[in-house]
This record gives sequence, structure tokens and C-alpha cells, in this order.
Amino acid sequence: MRPFRNIRRRMRASALVLGIAILAFGPVHARDDHLRSWNDGPTKKAIVEFVRKTTDKASPDYVPPGERIATFDNDGTLWAEQPMYVQALFAVDRVKALAPQHPEWQTQEPFASVLKGDLKGALAGGDKALLEILMATHAGMTTDEFQRIVKDWIATATNPVTKRPVLEMVYQPMVELLAYLREHGYKTFIVSGGGIEFMRPWAEQVYGVPPEQVIGSSIMTKFEKRDGKAVLVRLPEMNFIDDREGKPVGINQHIGHRPIAAFGNSDGDREMLEYATTGSGPRFGMLVLHDDAKREFAYGPASGLPDSHVGTFTQSLYDEARGRGWIVISMKDDWKRVFPSSR
Amino acid sequence: MRPFRNIRRRMRASALVLGIAILAFGPVHARDDHLRSWNDGPTKKAIVEFVRKTTDKASPDYVPPGERIATFDNDGTLWAEQPMYVQALFAVDRVKALAPQHPEWQTQEPFASVLKGDLKGALAGGDKALLEILMATHAGMTTDEFQRIVKDWIATATNPVTKRPVLEMVYQPMVELLAYLREHGYKTFIVSGGGIEFMRPWAEQVYGVPPEQVIGSSIMTKFEKRDGKAVLVRLPEMNFIDDREGKPVGINQHIGHRPIAAFGNSDGDREMLEYATTGSGPRFGMLVLHDDAKREFAYGPASGLPDSHVGTFTQSLYDEARGRGWIVISMKDDWKRVFPSSR
Repeated sequence: MRPFRNIRRRMRASALVLGIAILAFGPVHARDDHLRSWNDGPTKKAIVEFVRKTTDKASPDYVPPGERIATFDNDGTLWAEQPMYVQALFAVDRVKALAPQHPEWQTQEPFASVLKGDLKGALAGGDKALLEILMATHAGMTTDEFQRIVKDWIATATNPVTKRPVLEMVYQPMVELLAYLREHGYKTFIVSGGGIEFMRPWAEQVYGVPPEQVIGSSIMTKFEKRDGKAVLVRLPEMNFIDDREGKPVGINQHIGHRPIAAFGNSDGDREMLEYATTGSGPRFGMLVLHDDAKREFAYGPASGLPDSHVGTFTQSLYDEARGRGWIVISMKDDWKRVFPSSR
Repeated sequence: MRPFRNIRRRMRASALVLGIAILAFGPVHARDDHLRSWNDGPTKKAIVEFVRKTTDKASPDYVPPGERIATFDNDGTLWAEQPMYVQALFAVDRVKALAPQHPEWQTQEPFASVLKGDLKGALAGGDKALLEILMATHAGMTTDEFQRIVKDWIATATNPVTKRPVLEMVYQPMVELLAYLREHGYKTFIVSGGGIEFMRPWAEQVYGVPPEQVIGSSIMTKFEKRDGKAVLVRLPEMNFIDDREGKPVGINQHIGHRPIAAFGNSDGDREMLEYATTGSGPRFGMLVLHDDAKREFAYGPASGLPDSHVGTFTQSLYDEARGRGWIVISMKDDWKRVFPSSR
């Protein structure tokens, strides 16, 4: 089993790289001068004012700490999602890593196309193909094993367009916003369509969000005892899809409160923002518009930006944001810098 | 709709009673002299020693704060579950409250038996009857409405045997243990077979455990907009059963770590304790044995105590506890007092 020994060795090495990478990012959670990567302007001002009025005991909009719940989408809101979701890159790499154990994949779709690097061809099979790839790469191991696989993979994964580590393509202004909210007594949660167990192994180090505050899509697990040790085995069956109407459902299941602030970037976040902002008392909704082709990517199609299958932000969502008073962030105008390592 | 107006009025009154009741309980979360309702002896000593060695940075068993996760069963571990689960009392009262809207229940089982006060007759229909009662009383409203119903009901609910408020039948030593752990950097979670939305409305005031740290069984919910406001409607369909093998699954889904300490009282907690105590590093498992007929109830059948359908603690669980080094609490010997208001 030489291929596996090599992978293990690579994994150990990459765990080290993750450690170094995190140190090298610079003071991501620096405590002074919060929101320093935000340009001064109405957006930053609105954030600061919302936090002030909900935390100042003299304010009529004061909210007690236990109810200061803020939820954040992940892909496209906290880190880059173009040219495809990071979890899709992971699935492709896992198909390649597991291929020696599955000689039949050389000719069997959707795996044959994945192995040839033809992702479009692989996804021609629609949802069924996607689910097959997902289950082949995400199920069949214990939760502890999967955590280790993700941790090791993400330490060296790079974006196919920019060639930069995916962990260096988190949005520095949003990381600052998470920390800023927490310092004001907010509990910050991630609420993503992505896999809950795909995000948990690194979300705390990168975003400061512990595993119990990460909500996402999931597959089923099953309790087993192996040599007297209790484990959970990941099964090839969907459990929950944390997207669109699923986001408020997931929020209620995990948090049990209606958030008072929610942050997203696409039509998949619409219901989460509706849920957060239609409760009583002060409410805050915000959407990131990717209008910065120079520093990141530009896509919508809201505001005439190019259409995108990943992270679609429709004109209808844009219009609803206007109507409900949600703030739409312009990456180009509102962010002084986009990524932690850019100066 | 006179009956409903009366219920509403009673609800408002009872919310007030809840407030007073909580104040009257005395200093449930008092910060000095922790564990003062525990007798000095090996059990108390073991708790203090485990907390010391996991929180003392110089200890080889030191555990960083983020991994200090402790999970607690609710029924029979944090409050009394005899002669029947409190949530079953709630269901019975809800059938009575809703009966005027359902004239057909006068003759239709299992409701006819419930209305006659014959619970045994009602449950003769087995799981199907139980599920019918559950769905008729727990579904069909929004999550916000259900929260209000539970909050108002629990404020005046009493135990059918002792006639004391159910909220005064929480175990003072366990409430102190929860607070003691939290003061030492532990995050305390409830992991109960009971309904997640049935516990959340009062768990924070009574146990100091916020809604996002309550895990339990649940029914499905559905996102809807009513007059522009986003709500979640409770559907008459099971979502998740958080009991036995389900407890580790629920823990992983909600917390994403393996707990290092777990507390239960019945065979329903066996897998949770196995999951918590078979990880690496220091681990702590504890089971409450109800052997105090004088101050509470006595049931097992472990240790020759009377058999019970509610909170069954079998000899096989007792033997496993011995084998794995879990501590079995004797209510009679280990607890100085059982309830907050008893002196």
C-alpha cells in the first residue's frame, strides 16, 4: 500500500505547514483597531452603529448578550468560492487519492471524467453524479478519520486560478468583523451550504469559530464500537441540506434563537437573512457583492455583473435587499484589502 | 373562543410565577462554596480531582478550554422523571387544553383515554398512540408559539406525586456541578431524549445552559413567510431521536467534538458515556443511581432496586460502569440535599 504511506507522510508534513501558514497570515484576530481593513464610509459606519446601539445599556435598542447571535455564510462570504467551491476541489483530490483502490473508476462515470480533469464532463450526470462523487469521497470512514483527512488536505490546498493557498483566500475584513462582534458579546456562527464536518477542522483557527458554532450540510452517521472504542461511521446518505429554506431550519435546530444579524453573499442566503431580520427589535442584514475583478472575482448577475453558477447573486435578491434595508457590501469600495496577506 | 382567552390569561399569569419561582429557588448558581450539596466522600473527591487535573496547566492531563466539553442527560440526571417524564405531563395537559377544538377526541383513541385521565389506556396503542399524542400536541404551530406555550406551562406544572412544581424538582447537586464545571472553563451541554424545543425555553434560567447548548429529539420544521415575516412551522413528522445510539450522533452533529465528561442515569445514556470515555486523554463518566426512596424515588433495577419503565438502569449498565471506571452516584449517600428548596 505504498500510495497510502505516501499520503500519510504528506499529511503529517502538511499539518506542520498549516501551523506555519496560520502564523504567517499575520495578526488576523488582532485586538486593536478593529475593522481596519474596511474603508471609512457608510458600510463601516452602519456596522459600528449597529454594534453600539445593541451593546450600549443606555440604548433603547440594547440586546442582552445571550441574544446577540450573528450568523455568517461561508463560501463567498468568508472566503473565495471561485472558480469553484473549495469543497469541490477537495472531492476531486480525494477521487484522485482513492483511485488506486478503485481501478473501476478509470472507466466508470462520473469518476473517469474527474480523473481526466474534466469536471464539466463529470457533472454532466447532474445531481446523481455529484452525489456519487460526494459519497465516494466523504463517507466510509469514521468522523475522527475524516477530520484528519480534511485537516491535512486543507493545509496545502491551493486555488486553481490564483495558485494561492485556499486558507489565504479568506476575507480579512470579514475575519475582523467576526472578531469585532465577538468582542462585543456576540456569538458568531457559520451557517453554510457546505459540509459541516468539512469546515469544523479549521474554522476555529481561521475564523475563531469553534466546531459547536459551525452549521452546515451533513451526511448520516452511525454509532459503532471498534475494539471497545466508540466511533461514528460516516454513511453514504444525506442527512440535511443547509441551504436556502434549510438555513433557518438549521439555525433553529442548532442555535434555537433567531439571529439578530446575518451575513451572506448569494441567493442561498436569502431565507437566512429574512429569518434574521424579520424578528422584533434591532436587526442587521448584509450581503457581499463580488464586484472586484481586479483583487478577487466579479460576478452577480446583480448590478450587471457576469452570471455565475457558483454563488449566484440575482437582481431579485438585490431588489429585496433594498426593500428590506439590508446592506450590500461593494468589495471594491468597502474593503481596503481583501486577503490577509495582501498589503 | 372563551377557552383560549382563559388560557392566554393563565399564561400571562404563569410567566410571572416563573419569574418569582426562579427567584425563590434560592442561589441555585451561587458562586461560592461550589458542590456544597454534595457530601464529602469519594464521589465529590473524584469530581474535584478530575476538574483540577484537566484545568491545571502543570498537570500532564491538562485539557485546553475548547476541548472541555461536558454533556448531561436531563430526565433523571438533572431533574426528577418519576412517576413519568415531565414532557408526558405536558402532552396530557395540552390534549386537555386543545380538546375544545377537537370534539372528536371525546371518543377517539388515544385522546379519549387521555381526557379520562387513563394514561395507561391511552398508551395501550403503543408507539403509534404515543406518536399521535406527541404530534397533536407538539406540531401545528410556529417555533415561536411553541416556545411561549412551553414557557407558560412549565411555570405552574407540578409533579403528580409530590405536588411540587416540576422546576423545584431539579437536582441541586447537579445544578452546582454544572456551574462548577463552567467556572473551570467547561462548556456544559444537555443531551436528552426529550424534545429539544421543550427544554430550551427554561434550561438557561434553571441550569444555566443556553439554547444553543441544548441537544434533544426533534420534529421537522418548515420555513414559511407569514405577512412578510419569516417563521418556522412545526410539522407532525419526526426529525431525530436523541436517545441511545442517537446521543453520540446528536453530540457530533451539534458539538463536533467528543465530550471528555458525560453524565447520565439510565440505559439510554450508555452510548453517550461510551463515546465520551473512550477517547484519548483524561475522561470522566458518571451515572446517577436513584436509591433514595425517602427524599426522591428508588428505581433500577440495578442493585436490586424496583424495576421502572421510566429511566431504567439495568444491572448490565451497572456492570459496564464498574468495568469502564464510570462513577455511580448514590443519591442517598452522595447528596446532602436533593432539591433546591429542601434544607
